[in-house]
Amino acid sequence: MFYSLDILGTIAFAISGTLTAIHKKFDPVGVFIIAFATAIGGGTLRDVLIGRTPVGWMLDLNYVYAIIGATIFAIIMRKKIEYLSTSLFLFDTIGLGIFTIIGTEIGLQQNLHPIVCVILGVVTATFGGVIRDTLCNEIPVIFHKKIIYASACVVGGITFLVLTRFNVPVNINYIITSLIVIVIRLITAKFKLSLPTFSTRE
Amino acid sequence: MFYSLDILGTIAFAISGTLTAIHKKFDPVGVFIIAFATAIGGGTLRDVLIGRTPVGWMLDLNYVYAIIGATIFAIIMRKKIEYLSTSLFLFDTIGLGIFTIIGTEIGLQQNLHPIVCVILGVVTATFGGVIRDTLCNEIPVIFHKKIIYASACVVGGITFLVLTRFNVPVNINYIITSLIVIVIRLITAKFKLSLPTFSTRE
Amino acid sequence: MFYSLDILGTIAFAISGTLTAIHKKFDPVGVFIIAFATAIGGGTLRDVLIGRTPVGWMLDLNYVYAIIGATIFAIIMRKKIEYLSTSLFLFDTIGLGIFTIIGTEIGLQQNLHPIVCVILGVVTATFGGVIRDTLCNEIPVIFHKKIIYASACVVGGITFLVLTRFNVPVNINYIITSLIVIVIRLITAKFKLSLPTFSTRE
Repeated sequence: MFYSLDILGTIAFAISGTLTAIHKKFDPVGVFIIAFATAIGGGTLRDVLIGRTPVGWMLDLNYVYAIIGATIFAIIMRKKIEYLSTSLFLFDTIGLGIFTIIGTEIGLQQNLHPIVCVILGVVTATFGGVIRDTLCNEIPVIFHKKIIYASACVVGGITFLVLTRFNVPVNINYIITSLIVIVIRLITAKFKLSLPTFSTRE
Repeated sequence: MFYSLDILGTIAFAISGTLTAIHKKFDPVGVFIIAFATAIGGGTLRDVLIGRTPVGWMLDLNYVYAIIGATIFAIIMRKKIEYLSTSLFLFDTIGLGIFTIIGTEIGLQQNLHPIVCVILGVVTATFGGVIRDTLCNEIPVIFHKKIIYASACVVGGITFLVLTRFNVPVNINYIITSLIVIVIRLITAKFKLSLPTFSTRE
Repeated sequence: MFYSLDILGTIAFAISGTLTAIHKKFDPVGVFIIAFATAIGGGTLRDVLIGRTPVGWMLDLNYVYAIIGATIFAIIMRKKIEYLSTSLFLFDTIGLGIFTIIGTEIGLQQNLHPIVCVILGVVTATFGGVIRDTLCNEIPVIFHKKIIYASACVVGGITFLVLTRFNVPVNINYIITSLIVIVIRLITAKFKLSLPTFSTRE
């Protein structure tokens, strides 16, 4: 189940990258590159930072196939995908929850400090989108849009560590933690909650 | 010959970075940084992704000397270089062909899956330019300009793999594959061919 | 002393990132991400390029604590920090000097060529700021602002290597080299000196 959800998250991020690139009028090759960068960017950066190379997706082609398939699907369905936007948002949110756990757990496997593990969870879940936006020459959405995104990952990562410390079985931990990330994101999106920005002098 | 062509490609990309940075009114240090990033960015990203560190150019100073020389040359010749633009385009195209093969072959040496090898070829050939444009705060040229660029690398990388599979001697394979990339790029540039972008609803 | 100065440099860069992100109206999570990226970006890129992974700050939590503390401090003091701008500039300059030496010396430890060591010093000292500006969708300050910045690092790195070659004791070398970087930066800032940009045809 966990592996399938990981693939599902990869697909959701690939679709999100595809739609962004189409909107920017990129040509097909550009669309594929952005889809790839969005889907594997966060995990790739995590693997590079901890020295887990060759990076993950190079050793398991299912990720590559999933991205290619999702990109072709999104290109074909691009005019109808508005009807799908709710399911897309759901996939993206599921991906966020799963990627947070994966990043945090890989940090634990490498015996890194819990704070570093949470940071790796956030990097895994969010930097695909950051790379997508940077390549498209925009300020990354997670920095300025009025949404709760990375903060949901922080809460999820910490929960995962606390439950691990209390020896909660890992499968139950996966479910609880990813549900927390997903619920936080859904509720804050529903009620348009956001963190305040800081006032400045002028 | 292969090594010389690799150096030639590095020189061409360094010149391209230098001219971009001068056009942006960067100071001399900025010009050198952009020239370096353009010339070694693709190969560096490839090496980091597969864990081939320290990255290549750190272990063979000829690349560094070639970049420094090319940058100084381009700075001195900047006002006359329009006359050279055809040779520049040729160098850049040669670099594209060579870098595609180098990236693909290094993937093969690491026993990675053929699809991953082609991706590494594309990354090696194109991400120097992507990094250059990102640092200059522009949308990378290969994503939106009406040119065939990364797609020529994809074709070249696949050809290289197919010929390798059929045990074509590696030197002949190098020549055929790089010529394919170069010819595709030259012909499509000559006739201003490009891939279509995708229509959207609005 | 050296370790304290390293932490001090990290703090200064974290504060600089925090203020930039606040100015861009990023939310608190965005502010923390930019503060982190600015403070550890240069050293992280250096470590990734030479394969020193997991990267440095993951193995010494004091850097993480320093960044979190500095970011909270800068958020609280954001309206008064103009009064501190001189001390901030000083911290930043000290960080520049220290990070140059650290990067250069780590290159030496890895038995890399002196030129590569100087490049690593410049990367360590400047790429935190480059990453900060790229994520904020601006042209990196060091490329175009009329300031002497990376060039001070180049001079510092070369000095460090020359003194190492002449067997100057390492502690004295640290002090001399960082003072050179700091003095160059202070004097050129005081007298608003800058490198010329290159004229172009039009």
